[in-house]
Order: sequence, then C-alpha cells, then structure tokens
Amino acid sequence: MANHLVTHPHAVEGPHAATHHLGAADAAKIVQRLGLASCLRGMAARIEADFRRWPVFDKSARVAHHSAEGVIELMPISDGATYTFKYVNGHPGNHRLGLPTVMAFGVLADVATGMPVLLSELTLTTALRTAAMSALAARALARPDSRVMAVIGNGAQSEFQCLAFHHLLGVHTLRLFDVDAQASAKLARNLAGSGLSVHMCGSVAEAISGADIVTTLTADKARATIVTADMLRSGMHLNTVGGDCPGKTELAPEVLQAARVFVEYEPQTRVEGELQQMPPEFAVTELWQVLTGAAAGRTRPDEITLFDSVGFALEDFSALHFMRDCAERLGLLRPLALMPELDDPKDLFAWLRTPTADREDAA
Amino acid sequence: MANHLVTHPHAVEGPHAATHHLGAADAAKIVQRLGLASCLRGMAARIEADFRRWPVFDKSARVAHHSAEGVIELMPISDGATYTFKYVNGHPGNHRLGLPTVMAFGVLADVATGMPVLLSELTLTTALRTAAMSALAARALARPDSRVMAVIGNGAQSEFQCLAFHHLLGVHTLRLFDVDAQASAKLARNLAGSGLSVHMCGSVAEAISGADIVTTLTADKARATIVTADMLRSGMHLNTVGGDCPGKTELAPEVLQAARVFVEYEPQTRVEGELQQMPPEFAVTELWQVLTGAAAGRTRPDEITLFDSVGFALEDFSALHFMRDCAERLGLLRPLALMPELDDPKDLFAWLRTPTADREDAA
Repeated sequence: MANHLVTHPHAVEGPHAATHHLGAADAAKIVQRLGLASCLRGMAARIEADFRRWPVFDKSARVAHHSAEGVIELMPISDGATYTFKYVNGHPGNHRLGLPTVMAFGVLADVATGMPVLLSELTLTTALRTAAMSALAARALARPDSRVMAVIGNGAQSEFQCLAFHHLLGVHTLRLFDVDAQASAKLARNLAGSGLSVHMCGSVAEAISGADIVTTLTADKARATIVTADMLRSGMHLNTVGGDCPGKTELAPEVLQAARVFVEYEPQTRVEGELQQMPPEFAVTELWQVLTGAAAGRTRPDEITLFDSVGFALEDFSALHFMRDCAERLGLLRPLALMPELDDPKDLFAWLRTPTADREDAA
Repeated sequence: MANHLVTHPHAVEGPHAATHHLGAADAAKIVQRLGLASCLRGMAARIEADFRRWPVFDKSARVAHHSAEGVIELMPISDGATYTFKYVNGHPGNHRLGLPTVMAFGVLADVATGMPVLLSELTLTTALRTAAMSALAARALARPDSRVMAVIGNGAQSEFQCLAFHHLLGVHTLRLFDVDAQASAKLARNLAGSGLSVHMCGSVAEAISGADIVTTLTADKARATIVTADMLRSGMHLNTVGGDCPGKTELAPEVLQAARVFVEYEPQTRVEGELQQMPPEFAVTELWQVLTGAAAGRTRPDEITLFDSVGFALEDFSALHFMRDCAERLGLLRPLALMPELDDPKDLFAWLRTPTADREDAA
C-alpha cells in the first residue's frame, strides 16, 4: 500500500484537489506515533483555538434520526473557508453484535468549491476529541487542585477521559464504578502503567465520595438518575458526557439546580443534554464565552460547576483539522476515488462514455 | 484492483458487515454495462416504488450551508430499516476551476446498528436520479402525446434529462437554448445518434414556442426570470429543475399562477423551489399523492402542469439502493477501511495499542 500514500504536506489543498482518505487503522497509527498525551493536548489546543473564534462559525443543532435501537446523527458546521460534517451513531446494544456503541466518520470540504477533500474515520477521533473537550472544559471550570476523579460508566470512552484528565489537568487518582464489573476491570487493566492510581468502587455514591471531579459516561438511552444531589460536595466539577439525546439523561434535576451549568451550544444542549430536564429559563453559560473571557468560569473554590457535554460539530471540525494535519505530516493520507475527473467540467455525459472508464475494466 | 472486488451478491448485508465503496469510475461502468436507458428506467421504477410508500419515511428538509460561491447540503432520510444521506454542493462558478458545478456522494447505513455499509459517488448518480425523477413526474403530469421538449440551460444535467424524456416518455424532438451557444452545441453533439431530433434556438421564447414540455436547467444562484407567462401554451408541462435554493429561481410568479403545481416534499420546496415566490397559502400537490392515486395529476388536456423540482432525499435513498444493487450484481463494490475492527467492541483503547495497527506500518 506504500505506493498509495501521499507524502506531499499540502496534497489536499487547492480547489483542484481530489478526495483523500484516512482510515481507522491509519488514525491509530497517528496516536501510536505521536503518543496519546500529545494527541490529546494537540486536539484540546485546536478545539480551544476554534472555540475562541466561535462567532465566525455557521452553526446548527445536529440532525438526528432516532430508532428503537439507537440514533444516527449528522453534524455539519462551516467557518466560511472549510465545511465539515460528522456522521455518528449511538446504539447501546451494538456490543451484542460485536460492534462499537459509537461509530463515526467525517468529511472536510472546501467551501469555495464544495469539493470534499478528506474522508476520515472518526470513531477513534471522536473518543479523543470528546476527552480533549472534557479536559478543556474542566481546565476552565474545575478547581485547579482537583486530583481525584470519579468515573461512572467504564466503557469505550473511559480510558480516553481518564488519560486526558491525567495529562491535561494532573488528575492522579480514579474512583471507578460501572454496573458491569468487567468494564471497570478492563479500564483498570488498560490504565496499568499510566501513573494513575485506580480504586474500584461498589456504587456510584462510593465512587463519587471524595472525588474532586465526577465524570459520567453511561450509554443507556433512557432517563437515568445516576447522580443525585446528596452525592454532591462543594467545589466539585461534574463532567456529564453520557446524556446526549432527547430522553437520555444521567442526573437528577436537583444536581443541575445546585450547580453553575456550562454548555457547548445552547440550542442543541437544551434538547439533548441534562438541560432537557430544566425549564427554558434555567440559566447556562456557553463555554466559548469562558474561553474568551467574556463570561466567568469558576468564581469560588466552593462552587459546584457542571459541564453538560453533548458533543458539538465544532469539536469535530477541530478534530478533523488536527487529524488531517497529523496524517499529512506522517504521510498517511490515501487517494479515494469518489468524484469523477472530467476533461470538461460541463460535460459529465461525455466522461460517462470515455474509454478512460472502460480501460479500468481490464484492471 | 481485481482482488479487491466483492463478488458475493449480499456482501454488504448483515450487522457485522464492513463498509464498501463505489467510486465514480465504477458507477460509470454500471451505466456502460447496463445501458443508460435501462439505468434511467430502473432508477425511475425504484423512485416510484419508494414514493408510493412515502408515509413510512422519516423526512426532513435538507440542511444547507450557503456561501458567496455556492451551497453545500446534507440530505438525510430513513425508512426505519435503512438510513441514507447525500452530500451535495452547487457552485455555478466551479467550471472556471475545472470542477463540476454539482458534486455529490452518499452513504447507506443500517438503522439497527448505525453501521455505514456503503459509501458511494453520487455525482453521476444524481444526474441520473434527477432525470429519472423528472421523467417520472412528467409521466404522471404531461399530456401523453407530448413529443416536443424545450430545454433551457444545456449544462451537465441536460443530456440525462433529454434521454430520460426520450426513453421514458417518447419525446422525439428537442428545442435547445442556452446563453452559452457552446453548451447547446455540446448537448447536440452528445445526443447525435440517440434518435432525438435537435433544433437550436436563438432565445428562450423561440425554444418554448411549439413545445409540449419545457425543462429548465439553469444554474445561476439568482432570482432569474427565464420563463414568463406570455410564453405558455395550454396543455404544457413545465419541468423546472434549476431553481433549487433560497434566492435561486427561474420562473415569473405568473407562470406558477397559471399552472397546477406539483412538488416533491412541500416543506422543502416552499423554501427552495419556484414556490418561494408565492404566498404560503398557494396550493400545491405532493407528487407521491398522485403516484398512489390519492390526488389527481393532469385532469384535462389543456391544463398547464408544473413540477417544481428541487431534489429530495428520498430520490437519493432510491438511487443509492439501485446503484448498490447493480454494483453488487456486477461485482463492483470495494472494501473501504473506515471503521475500526475491534476484538472487544467495548475496548477501543486496547485496539489502539494492538500490534495489528502496527503491522500495517510495514506494508
């Protein structure tokens, strides 16, 4: 396959560029070569830079198609120069079929011409960007001396969250709980040698007790109440990642009432986040305002802060750019035969009849 | 590349299936091997069958991102078993950069798992499905004795429209006009030997004079008035394809007032079609109702009918299925490395560190 690799650093630039492809195994190579900590830091930096120029983006809530088994969503966004979208599903029962709960891919396109220049896997990339986003939010909202994190839900996303909080915030102790003890064992096994001290807990309350940061990562498509107000402690930061669909929540409403709540994109979180439980007038702050200094993040050490994370298209815009840049640098982009290459752009019909297409028959 | 071809007829079925890919050159091979007339007929039949089960689809207007140069759109839809979406751009100035005005690709996914099983080119496919849709609408709306068609706008879509109306409706004479005489010459050249009699005209009015059917295919992103009421003749059918964006129209409002107007999906056409010029109470009929017999199509030979075509996601759903079935039959699907293949679907992190991904480095 080496002869298919693109090594020119700007191979996907320019209006005449064709489409390139970054597959899942090649995305894994990026993380293996650069290191997970470096990827998480780079992605957080890119997300932060893009969130700081929030007003330039043409934003909309994602478009979801729900079924009994799960949801399929499209998440488009544009900054006027580049357009990206992500396709992502959420199917909590997929593991019974040997498939991940969340699978994703995305496209980066040139706004000036509409040409899709990159098709990329986003399953691994989504895990990275979600963790980077959570750590970025926590850096603005959690107490700087936060060192102990409770992790409720120990599935596919959990390692990435733990390591992002370790490398970007200095968290050194984890308190794990999952209804499936094997999931916690898997998480602990995967974190061996990371420098994180791991404690297995028998309940949500036990895990949260003594934690500075509480991260919830449960996948059930249901109105769950994983965290209740009696578990809270002053000065906590909550990073709630699992509730990200209408009808899918993780917190008791009293937890939101006790906290200052921060969101990515308010119109989307009102529908999809923990916020769906609250009246429309319940006040929240969009995180980009904290990152630009337009709004306050944490104001007191004893305040409870809550990042109601649902995942916003801008994070994927940033992640696609980060992965594209890494893949170009490492020579991992492959050409993808997606668009017709016309001799005369106004003559699709003639191309259809050219021997060029015929010649490939013999291959 | 022959060793990458998939010949099993149901290779993309089943929840464990990986993603396959149909590129533009392979889509062209389908048309070359089956013949354009057969592809247009097969696609029209599939679109008609899907339009007849209209109520089962989870429908929404497409999501558009507009820029000075053009538009990029996502068009998702689902019937509860299969989900599809199309990515499509419209950039009228692209030909100056050697790129087509319209480029597209799409994905077909399994609703039960969210797995994208097919990534397909849709540039050629969109030209085919738009023509098939126009002919399907005209078969329900035009006078059965329609034989002469005016074609205003002779760009990349025009050959497909002319041949669809020839093969599916029996149109035998074309009256061409384009502001660019070279475009008309190209269209006439491409139709040589098709059995169609072609007349070059010096104006829109001249082209329309004597026509039974008027097809408009102009691309300018502007409020244009290509057809005015004085050009109409009783019994005409208008097939207006070019106006498909907010701010992009081809007809004088009086033309709509003089006609019975049929649309694909009313909520989308109100915003994007010629209909955007009319008040919200202006009556239209959705075409699926005509195809199921729930509403009347043409009721009298002297009636003027108008299909205000903007392109709806369901047509791409049908087209993706048609092309997938043809590609499977002809062994033209190729595997696409898009999703990670995990030993344990709950353990993305372990996959990231497996030597499997490393081994590929040596390739």
